[in-house]
Amino acid sequence: MATGPDVAHPAVPGPRTGPAEADLGYARLDLDRAARTGDPEVVYGAGKTPEQVVGALRALAAAHPDRAVLATRVTPETMALCRDELPGARLDEIGRTVTLGSAPAPVGRVAVVCAGTSDLPVARECATVVEVFGAEPDLIVDVGVAGLHRLLAQRDRIAGADVVVAVAGMEAALPSVLAGLVGVPLIALPTSVGYGWHLDGLTAFLATLNSCAPGVLCVNVDNGFGAGVAAARIARRTGPPR
Amino acid sequence: MATGPDVAHPAVPGPRTGPAEADLGYARLDLDRAARTGDPEVVYGAGKTPEQVVGALRALAAAHPDRAVLATRVTPETMALCRDELPGARLDEIGRTVTLGSAPAPVGRVAVVCAGTSDLPVARECATVVEVFGAEPDLIVDVGVAGLHRLLAQRDRIAGADVVVAVAGMEAALPSVLAGLVGVPLIALPTSVGYGWHLDGLTAFLATLNSCAPGVLCVNVDNGFGAGVAAARIARRTGPPR
Amino acid sequence: MATGPDVAHPAVPGPRTGPAEADLGYARLDLDRAARTGDPEVVYGAGKTPEQVVGALRALAAAHPDRAVLATRVTPETMALCRDELPGARLDEIGRTVTLGSAPAPVGRVAVVCAGTSDLPVARECATVVEVFGAEPDLIVDVGVAGLHRLLAQRDRIAGADVVVAVAGMEAALPSVLAGLVGVPLIALPTSVGYGWHLDGLTAFLATLNSCAPGVLCVNVDNGFGAGVAAARIARRTGPPR
Amino acid sequence: MATGPDVAHPAVPGPRTGPAEADLGYARLDLDRAARTGDPEVVYGAGKTPEQVVGALRALAAAHPDRAVLATRVTPETMALCRDELPGARLDEIGRTVTLGSAPAPVGRVAVVCAGTSDLPVARECATVVEVFGAEPDLIVDVGVAGLHRLLAQRDRIAGADVVVAVAGMEAALPSVLAGLVGVPLIALPTSVGYGWHLDGLTAFLATLNSCAPGVLCVNVDNGFGAGVAAARIARRTGPPR
Amino acid sequence: MATGPDVAHPAVPGPRTGPAEADLGYARLDLDRAARTGDPEVVYGAGKTPEQVVGALRALAAAHPDRAVLATRVTPETMALCRDELPGARLDEIGRTVTLGSAPAPVGRVAVVCAGTSDLPVARECATVVEVFGAEPDLIVDVGVAGLHRLLAQRDRIAGADVVVAVAGMEAALPSVLAGLVGVPLIALPTSVGYGWHLDGLTAFLATLNSCAPGVLCVNVDNGFGAGVAAARIARRTGPPR
Amino acid sequence: MATGPDVAHPAVPGPRTGPAEADLGYARLDLDRAARTGDPEVVYGAGKTPEQVVGALRALAAAHPDRAVLATRVTPETMALCRDELPGARLDEIGRTVTLGSAPAPVGRVAVVCAGTSDLPVARECATVVEVFGAEPDLIVDVGVAGLHRLLAQRDRIAGADVVVAVAGMEAALPSVLAGLVGVPLIALPTSVGYGWHLDGLTAFLATLNSCAPGVLCVNVDNGFGAGVAAARIARRTGPPR
Amino acid sequence: MATGPDVAHPAVPGPRTGPAEADLGYARLDLDRAARTGDPEVVYGAGKTPEQVVGALRALAAAHPDRAVLATRVTPETMALCRDELPGARLDEIGRTVTLGSAPAPVGRVAVVCAGTSDLPVARECATVVEVFGAEPDLIVDVGVAGLHRLLAQRDRIAGADVVVAVAGMEAALPSVLAGLVGVPLIALPTSVGYGWHLDGLTAFLATLNSCAPGVLCVNVDNGFGAGVAAARIARRTGPPR
Amino acid sequence: MATGPDVAHPAVPGPRTGPAEADLGYARLDLDRAARTGDPEVVYGAGKTPEQVVGALRALAAAHPDRAVLATRVTPETMALCRDELPGARLDEIGRTVTLGSAPAPVGRVAVVCAGTSDLPVARECATVVEVFGAEPDLIVDVGVAGLHRLLAQRDRIAGADVVVAVAGMEAALPSVLAGLVGVPLIALPTSVGYGWHLDGLTAFLATLNSCAPGVLCVNVDNGFGAGVAAARIARRTGPPR
Repeated sequence: MATGPDVAHPAVPGPRTGPAEADLGYARLDLDRAARTGDPEVVYGAGKTPEQVVGALRALAAAHPDRAVLATRVTPETMALCRDELPGARLDEIGRTVTLGSAPAPVGRVAVVCAGTSDLPVARECATVVEVFGAEPDLIVDVGVAGLHRLLAQRDRIAGADVVVAVAGMEAALPSVLAGLVGVPLIALPTSVGYGWHLDGLTAFLATLNSCAPGVLCVNVDNGFGAGVAAARIARRTGPPR
Repeated sequence: MATGPDVAHPAVPGPRTGPAEADLGYARLDLDRAARTGDPEVVYGAGKTPEQVVGALRALAAAHPDRAVLATRVTPETMALCRDELPGARLDEIGRTVTLGSAPAPVGRVAVVCAGTSDLPVARECATVVEVFGAEPDLIVDVGVAGLHRLLAQRDRIAGADVVVAVAGMEAALPSVLAGLVGVPLIALPTSVGYGWHLDGLTAFLATLNSCAPGVLCVNVDNGFGAGVAAARIARRTGPPR
Repeated sequence: MATGPDVAHPAVPGPRTGPAEADLGYARLDLDRAARTGDPEVVYGAGKTPEQVVGALRALAAAHPDRAVLATRVTPETMALCRDELPGARLDEIGRTVTLGSAPAPVGRVAVVCAGTSDLPVARECATVVEVFGAEPDLIVDVGVAGLHRLLAQRDRIAGADVVVAVAGMEAALPSVLAGLVGVPLIALPTSVGYGWHLDGLTAFLATLNSCAPGVLCVNVDNGFGAGVAAARIARRTGPPR
Repeated sequence: MATGPDVAHPAVPGPRTGPAEADLGYARLDLDRAARTGDPEVVYGAGKTPEQVVGALRALAAAHPDRAVLATRVTPETMALCRDELPGARLDEIGRTVTLGSAPAPVGRVAVVCAGTSDLPVARECATVVEVFGAEPDLIVDVGVAGLHRLLAQRDRIAGADVVVAVAGMEAALPSVLAGLVGVPLIALPTSVGYGWHLDGLTAFLATLNSCAPGVLCVNVDNGFGAGVAAARIARRTGPPR
Repeated sequence: MATGPDVAHPAVPGPRTGPAEADLGYARLDLDRAARTGDPEVVYGAGKTPEQVVGALRALAAAHPDRAVLATRVTPETMALCRDELPGARLDEIGRTVTLGSAPAPVGRVAVVCAGTSDLPVARECATVVEVFGAEPDLIVDVGVAGLHRLLAQRDRIAGADVVVAVAGMEAALPSVLAGLVGVPLIALPTSVGYGWHLDGLTAFLATLNSCAPGVLCVNVDNGFGAGVAAARIARRTGPPR
Repeated sequence: MATGPDVAHPAVPGPRTGPAEADLGYARLDLDRAARTGDPEVVYGAGKTPEQVVGALRALAAAHPDRAVLATRVTPETMALCRDELPGARLDEIGRTVTLGSAPAPVGRVAVVCAGTSDLPVARECATVVEVFGAEPDLIVDVGVAGLHRLLAQRDRIAGADVVVAVAGMEAALPSVLAGLVGVPLIALPTSVGYGWHLDGLTAFLATLNSCAPGVLCVNVDNGFGAGVAAARIARRTGPPR
Repeated sequence: MATGPDVAHPAVPGPRTGPAEADLGYARLDLDRAARTGDPEVVYGAGKTPEQVVGALRALAAAHPDRAVLATRVTPETMALCRDELPGARLDEIGRTVTLGSAPAPVGRVAVVCAGTSDLPVARECATVVEVFGAEPDLIVDVGVAGLHRLLAQRDRIAGADVVVAVAGMEAALPSVLAGLVGVPLIALPTSVGYGWHLDGLTAFLATLNSCAPGVLCVNVDNGFGAGVAAARIARRTGPPR
Repeated sequence: MATGPDVAHPAVPGPRTGPAEADLGYARLDLDRAARTGDPEVVYGAGKTPEQVVGALRALAAAHPDRAVLATRVTPETMALCRDELPGARLDEIGRTVTLGSAPAPVGRVAVVCAGTSDLPVARECATVVEVFGAEPDLIVDVGVAGLHRLLAQRDRIAGADVVVAVAGMEAALPSVLAGLVGVPLIALPTSVGYGWHLDGLTAFLATLNSCAPGVLCVNVDNGFGAGVAAARIARRTGPPR
């Protein structure tokens, strides 16, 4: 196992002894990255054929039999092939993810909070990434700012998390409202959900960037993967209160 | 008095019999506009010398002895001259307005809501315009979304107004939160308040434009005058519940 | 009936006694919103299957037998299914709306003004929303600024309305011209109609935002729904002149 | 005199026999351009010292004793020096121009139309350029779209011109309204006049570019010089109706 | 025939005695516009069915038997139907136009200049509009700035025109180079032709707007129709040199 | 002391018993925020007079005698007055901060990494905020990507931190390079440092947002305060490796 | 052979004696350009039918039997036809190019460096252009900044080239890192590769434009052709060290 | 002296034996960079005091007695101090540069071409950088595209250079025109020169980026330094024709 200082809190402990790369023809897999950073392997499914995604998942699973491997942005066609070809895989059709192998025992809890149906694909992708990267996701849906009573009813649950990911499209008021309610590290995840002239999520993005509450961090529009990776890294480091 | 259908709810009743225009050399005043639209006369103070603003206010007041006339965006130098030269004038140094003459008896109440100090100049300009244009302004400060308890404490007061103007800079979450709390006609007034890369208020503006709550109306950035005119027009029409 | 101050002017009077939410699997309907805000229920049709829209309309109609429910942005496929499955529904193929149940008795009149064929879908969506939200829509077509005589011929009809919605694409000169003619509360509804480099309606939008006439309010590009909700809210409050 | 086909309609007839260039140290004057294009010489005053502008005007006047020479964007300091040093010069403090020498006998009339005080500097710069470049300027002020009756009162005067320049800031509705009223060649001259978020004239510019009336031509924001040059070129070619 | 001052130079002389409008169900044709502005009638073909375009052309031709009527942006399907249904029509498949009836005797010549194949559709649309609107188009192709010798070989032909339309995509250097060569009124017509990140013609557009040569006029990207209308209006006024 | 779940890891333990607000006339201080969020109080110095900043610091220090209070964006004039009036204050002229009172015992280490002189003001502001908010800042300067050997020499020191803040202007390649080297939670802090057309830091900002390395979090341009708050919140939660 | 000073370093020596142009109906080929600039002929395949591309390649090859001719941006359909119809052609399906005829003996070496699979189409197009334009391409893949060790392992190979083309999407850190490592003339070739809100390559483009390393040159997004032409021109001039 | 492959063509041969860095307090000078890249040392004068610039030049000159050192973007105040304190320095007040020490014997010639006065500061800065970095600058002024005959008169001189830098503001047509005339490696250097709405040079920049002539390279707006560095690097590699 890599023991350098940057993997003091790896998502998955234990040695890896396979080759450093696998060349599948259509992709060269970096089998060594987990050792360098402590993170699991992920296949970005967009733009790949179903056969390529299934092949890459199999190769990664073979190289890492002791940990989960993940595919994101999986198309319906790929989802169907995974159902047939990868019997033990966990499929999330809304979040567009396929997971193979057991997630590590979680360290820390990540509250993934969103307003509702439209933001759900991005929120669920984030939650699955959190799980595969070694923390416990806690998905809290239906708490948009237009129905403030629902949000306030969840305040204690959110405040007790180790990290909060606030998923929001349109005007993205949720991160600011949450950051005024709790002092937990907070990642704003803007989405491209909206009607009319919202510039493909730029509105949500600018709003999170200019939150009136200090300390809000953000990722790119619809980047549930990036938010999940960052949230899990933070949560994994969480110790008892000091 | 003009009695056409568009002045059924004028801010100031009563005939006007002076000339249709006054030519001050540096400006030609449209003394007839009040009759056409029912609205009072306003001097836009930015870019004018103190003497020009004082002169314009005097000419308008002479033409409209029975109603208030207003100057907006008044510079400190102009403010000082108004204090010396226009004894009865009401000066608002924060809102940058000077009012001469009595405001009409108000019809309807306009809640002007904002988060705090930075938004105050725009909010007070709006409130004064509401008053001069014939409605009752109700300025509610210190209710930003980062301190939600203060906002919720004012909910009934806001919900009981005839129109709400939600003044907000930075990420401008306030209009959406308010629009989820009350069903009153709501005007979002974005401001250019912010730190860092906020594009001179574009962020606030886009946020109000993309509110997740339906029916939010908006005006240009920092346009306290326009929001006040529109809010007063709506409030003046308010009748008993139907 | 909810009697809080924010529903002093509800679109539809009378109690609602059903459950607060209906979970259709693909959507969770907030059956309580009408009581909180006095507004009817609306299904946003874009991105939903015909079966989902029909199902949602039926569920809402069952929960609110005494008022109209509405679907907007209905696709041709959904329109066809509604024709078969919802016998009493009123279909507007140009405005892309389906209404089920009786609209409330209207309070106040909303003039929805536009230049012609291209703006008609947005204008008709707005007019239907006005009706379902409790005011009387008055659709005035073919009055673009390039044929000023037609616009002037409608001046009195427009000036006599309680609210004006000025629908305009391209350079969107209509709201400014109208706001110079009448003193009625005026909502500019920019559309994405145009040729060449018009930035998907940004030109129209910026124009309405910078109107030289004071007090022009605006909504997002093509947002006929939002303009209709806001216009009806204002019109419903209209009382006898004060 | 240059007799090439492109100077069939020169602003100023007659030969030029001086040297092709004058080197003033701080500027090299192209004394030959008039012969090539039939246009007079112009000094762009912005960014030059008063002495440089006066010197350049003198050198041009010496080279072209039979025609007017012009300086634009003249600062107040330069204006003052011109008053002292160039006795016969015509100074326009609002339009920021200084003209030396007699304008040619005008061919064709250019209506320069604008809404009022704010657009006046650009409109007057344009009118002076029209005159110096050989056509008759006809400045028509105070005809903004917010006061349509004034505009309509000037319709015949505008329709009888050979070219119309429609000067407009803010939402720039004037060019479209004019283009719907008259069939004369029309140049839209957007200005940076506006309040709030108008993007330094971009709004006006986009509006003129997207006019619903066909055949509207446009120049850059505040480019009174360019509009005047183009308008005069067109007007000079005007013959009797065919 | 309308004899108001704005139709002193109509494209087509003679009275029109039909009704002022024709309602085809899918479109209301303004049969009176020609009388008001002297311009012919045009059907914008984009977004209309082949049957609608053919029907509109027939109705216009019936109302204006003595002049040409035109359809622009005609799709291949519509082109095919026009070939079958409108025997005498002139079809331009590259310029996407269909013309019915005789063009008026031309007054003035318009040089339409472009670099080559990619700009040809826009250039030919412009040339046809020039012809139908009453001037003589002179299409000059293959004279881009990257092959300067070809452009210089056409200099006299271009300089002898009454108006120049410079059609250019990509970096749009052509209008500036032409405006430095000739003194003729010049309209820049930017096109959306380009590779890579050219912002759908914004680059070409900004370039024409910022030409270093004074007096360049411009229209919207790809707006061959607008450029043709304006060019013909100018050319029609051209008299013998003064 | 507030013991809600969101202050499980407060920067400063211990009760606060003073009033909830202090009204200084020019500012209303929220003395209760620390209890709600566990964070210290901060005065934003930009736009305030030296006297106001000194007064606010004194009021906060009186209310919180047991913890540090901080002023950021302090002008040279304010810095000078602080030196005279606040004897025990720690002044950082480069980072533009003034600190009064002892920082809490740090929990966790935050590596603040930047390329050099130009980014130093933002980096030092961030480091001071980290300290005052309860973590140990470790400022590592002179490690830009143009001199990769220096960066690689610091790899272990950076990898051993609990959080990394990568401060970078211009093209902002540093966060991506760092995120490829270490697996620590990483916050990119773009700065407005640059020459030519860099859009006031937009370039740096977009670069950090699009990092090819997963899990990079970001804050607004030049927002050293926000990055410091977030980094300290994360670092304070750090426990022994799990 | 053209012997003007600008073809002192032509890609392909030797005379050309064919006609100056070939008109294929759908395209007019400039057979003379090679003589003027020393560059080979290229067919831009996008937007052309397979038959047109094959025909153009044949015509160019017949006119230039002694040098390679090239088609870029070849679609899969065109690629298939070329395989059938042009037996000796070299097809690159990833780089989307078809080459006919022998490349000239290379002068100078161009290192084309990129991070991996996504940038490969643009990088290979560039490499082929380099070859056809007379230099030796050296394609170095899999050296992104997120895996710095691989990049450092290739340092000497890159530093020994005559020109470097750094191909990079997303945040495009590669050109800056390379420019800090080697002093070779360096062309940054940004690509539109990225996830989320990257503005179609604008991010990569702005990053290359603002490189902290001096002397970085850039081309448009995805412009492998332009980068290849420029790189070959530079490499062909390379002599022994001076 | 470093003999790695990336300094095969250094601007200045010979060993450097001083320390690797000099710390002046206000700046840390990287004395080793020349050895690594073969380039001379440069002080960026903007934002530094006159004393700092003079001090930095002296320190660099002491460390590199055998080569020229350079300061760019020198303010008038700094220029005055350099005149007093650095007797042998060469001052260019227009190009804003100060050079100390002898430039190396030039290898290759760089034609720096621009239209005239406005572009001269950037062009001269570029020319001086070319000289100090080891090539021969050839400044060609007054050849804008609006006076094509002057440009054509310089064609052979430009075509005979080893590199061309085309400096251009406004619509920046010059690089495209030049690239059509000569086959020499060409760097477009856009400037922020312009009137009206040109977006601080964006127009020029986009134009150069979208040149219709293949192989045009570009640098950031006004980046005379970067263009000079790149041009010299290319020129220094130039050998006899191959």
